[in-house]
Amino acid sequence: MPTAAEKAESFRALHLASRPFVLPNAWDVASARLFEDAGFPAVATSSAGVMVSRGYPDGQEMPRRELVEVVSRIASRLSVPVSADVVAGYGRGPGGVVRTVRQMLDAGAIGINVEDHDPVRDRLFPLAVQLRKIRAVRELGTSVGLPIVINARTDALWKGPGTPEERFREAVRRCRGFRDAGADCVYPMRLTDAAQIESFVSNVEGPVNVMIRAGLPSLPDLERLGVRRISFGPAASYAALGFLRRACAEIRANGSFASLVDGAISFDELNQLARARPAPAG
Amino acid sequence: MPTAAEKAESFRALHLASRPFVLPNAWDVASARLFEDAGFPAVATSSAGVMVSRGYPDGQEMPRRELVEVVSRIASRLSVPVSADVVAGYGRGPGGVVRTVRQMLDAGAIGINVEDHDPVRDRLFPLAVQLRKIRAVRELGTSVGLPIVINARTDALWKGPGTPEERFREAVRRCRGFRDAGADCVYPMRLTDAAQIESFVSNVEGPVNVMIRAGLPSLPDLERLGVRRISFGPAASYAALGFLRRACAEIRANGSFASLVDGAISFDELNQLARARPAPAG
Repeated sequence: MPTAAEKAESFRALHLASRPFVLPNAWDVASARLFEDAGFPAVATSSAGVMVSRGYPDGQEMPRRELVEVVSRIASRLSVPVSADVVAGYGRGPGGVVRTVRQMLDAGAIGINVEDHDPVRDRLFPLAVQLRKIRAVRELGTSVGLPIVINARTDALWKGPGTPEERFREAVRRCRGFRDAGADCVYPMRLTDAAQIESFVSNVEGPVNVMIRAGLPSLPDLERLGVRRISFGPAASYAALGFLRRACAEIRANGSFASLVDGAISFDELNQLARARPAPAG
Repeated sequence: MPTAAEKAESFRALHLASRPFVLPNAWDVASARLFEDAGFPAVATSSAGVMVSRGYPDGQEMPRRELVEVVSRIASRLSVPVSADVVAGYGRGPGGVVRTVRQMLDAGAIGINVEDHDPVRDRLFPLAVQLRKIRAVRELGTSVGLPIVINARTDALWKGPGTPEERFREAVRRCRGFRDAGADCVYPMRLTDAAQIESFVSNVEGPVNVMIRAGLPSLPDLERLGVRRISFGPAASYAALGFLRRACAEIRANGSFASLVDGAISFDELNQLARARPAPAG
């Protein structure tokens, strides 16, 4: 088994490869192991997916220890690197965020997502505060000898003040700051338009993460636009629940169970998702 | 809000209605609330679904307190009656099973599934032992004033000794025993063939539960065959994970995200699944 540091390095290398990579966000062990089996080189968690699955809305209503517990369960069953979404880090300042990230490292994560939107007050943290948090997380990684992969998210495009143009400039400004403070990748939430993506990438001059949502260009197009990392975000939760809704509607409309039976995995396949993958022979 | 006793009575009444009912089995709050929103009159849990989602194989490796915790989370967010799968009840005899069921009632469940297959030794419990458990659960319900709905499952059709005909007769014998011991419904696992279902129903002379799986007749046919309750079992977990596997294959094959985007629910719809439904006006 690779060490945590080796996993962090191989995860970081994905951001610097010649082609972009797709990062699926899971919400439980079953979805995480399925993504691993599907061949993705790393798996992340989706805060919205995890939280709603446990009866909490997205944000920080769910206690931190529960979020850590879910990441720990997932990381204990996965062989590939795991990156944890910590929302805004469960802290107003660097101290709380570092405490959260330290717990995530102990849980087995080697990367984090941290955002600049304060879910308690529903507004952006000042950039200076956010930069202190990112520097503190980088210093934590150095102090424990783990080159943690930091994906720094800004919500300036949709939560920031001003015109769309002002919000775009603010998102670029923030992401350049995040990058200089030690982030490995930046993540402007709600960036989907091809021209905007291209402009953002060229302005930031570092790895950029976009999320799968309606209107996002296809993977080959994102590659041409210079995007490095394409994450599911909560898209797989949205899609799986949409699928289940259709299956229920089919049962209630005409008493057919085909949607639940056709293309389903088997009991044995489900059960295998509870265990770590067997180590490759040799 | 109806009391637990009222929920148990309304759930029991579904087994005695003129038409069969479909009971979806959830594995977390999101799936349970989605099933509720889809209009099902009650929701159950799937042990396999719950356990694998948390990194345990189906059986009783997952500690009882975790299974209870999941049921508690789900019941706290649902308005419809909740029935809990307790596997074999986490006990070799009536004492342990009663302890488990009592915890499930405290968690908000008003019905249970209990099976006669010993997951530790992988064989059927003697019928006499199973009957004592069912009587003890019925007595527990009486003593706490909650008319708990007992769905008694037998695995004799596929785990029992002998020829298929002998296993069928043993499953009928067990289910008649369960019924006489106080079960509200009996559940012969692996019963899917129409002729066998018809024979089983007429031999048992009480409500019979079948599970959705490949080969099960459609709902209108099951109604004609006299089935009262059709549960998802782990079918929704199998199907949702099969769906996700296809979505991942599509991304990896041609870089398209359509499966994750088309027909998905929205962020707001996901978030609403974390909360109880608003009480009807008036």
